[in-house]
Amino acid sequence: MILYFAPGACSLADHIALIEAGLAFDTVEVDLKTHKTADGEDYFTVNSKGYVPSLRLDDGQLLTENIAILAWIADQAPSLAPAGELSRYHLLETLAYISSEIHKSFKPFFKPGASDEDKAEAAAVIEKRLGYFTQRLQAGYLFGKEATVADAYLFVVLTWAQKTHIPLSAPLSAFVERMRGRAAVRAALADEGLA
Amino acid sequence: MILYFAPGACSLADHIALIEAGLAFDTVEVDLKTHKTADGEDYFTVNSKGYVPSLRLDDGQLLTENIAILAWIADQAPSLAPAGELSRYHLLETLAYISSEIHKSFKPFFKPGASDEDKAEAAAVIEKRLGYFTQRLQAGYLFGKEATVADAYLFVVLTWAQKTHIPLSAPLSAFVERMRGRAAVRAALADEGLA
Repeated sequence: MILYFAPGACSLADHIALIEAGLAFDTVEVDLKTHKTADGEDYFTVNSKGYVPSLRLDDGQLLTENIAILAWIADQAPSLAPAGELSRYHLLETLAYISSEIHKSFKPFFKPGASDEDKAEAAAVIEKRLGYFTQRLQAGYLFGKEATVADAYLFVVLTWAQKTHIPLSAPLSAFVERMRGRAAVRAALADEGLA
Repeated sequence: MILYFAPGACSLADHIALIEAGLAFDTVEVDLKTHKTADGEDYFTVNSKGYVPSLRLDDGQLLTENIAILAWIADQAPSLAPAGELSRYHLLETLAYISSEIHKSFKPFFKPGASDEDKAEAAAVIEKRLGYFTQRLQAGYLFGKEATVADAYLFVVLTWAQKTHIPLSAPLSAFVERMRGRAAVRAALADEGLA
């Protein structure tokens, strides 16, 4: 299995989740500017959409899109999914919220030449939407006392918030530190040269 | 079961899919400006995020986020999901792409006061990202000869593209007409006052 990633990008969530799941995998770094992999391959031949993550499964099939890959990992390692009958849908609900309402709102911060006004507006939206999670983290993680794949994704967008100086509530800051204390998070950050 | 919707919003995909699935449900219209339901309820008491869709299941539990609701519907009516071992993840992959790369890119068109420059930039991104589906529609639908819940979502974003005068390739335009020919699509549009 091969995870195609860019350091600190949303693929870091998959990287953490794969380590948490105890699955065997290799990583290939992608330069998102040149669309070349670390071994010189044209990344568009791997994933025609050109962005990360992509996960090459052992049977050769490719999975793309963070939500789909994280859902797949959770199904391989049920300890990384919340418990309960509707849990798989509540997990998707949380992943979709992080993706569409938070991750995508960072766009002005990743776009060369975006105005300060656009960035300030995006920061306000992100702060508000992150606030939705503050209450949910009381037990430690999004779904209670155990971390799921959704926590890995939330951790990644919170690192972006810290980098872009978006204020985090105390429970969100404490969550980032809690995640940084996990061996899988430390290992993934080290693998990506971010330790 | 109750689907909370706003006419023509992304909740139209769930509306179509619920009818295609043959599930019994009621609908409640939400005014996204006042956040009131058609019967005068404060919609924030239904869904604290304030947007549609929300699906109130028969046991009282609430599901939100289009991807999660469409995945749930596909699991109730497997004919609305693609076949194959990895199919549930490829379905999520397609739903995630439509949500994060296409739906979210319409933001300037829904934002009062957005500049023409922002709209033109968004239109170019949407046109390019829709292009990714052109080849995939050769057999009729995204996953082949049978419609899935992903086709309902693609149909909705294509209606937005038509309204905002974003050019569609011939296969995409033909797909819109193919969907408009389906009884479930006609019924959902009629229910939402869009026939």
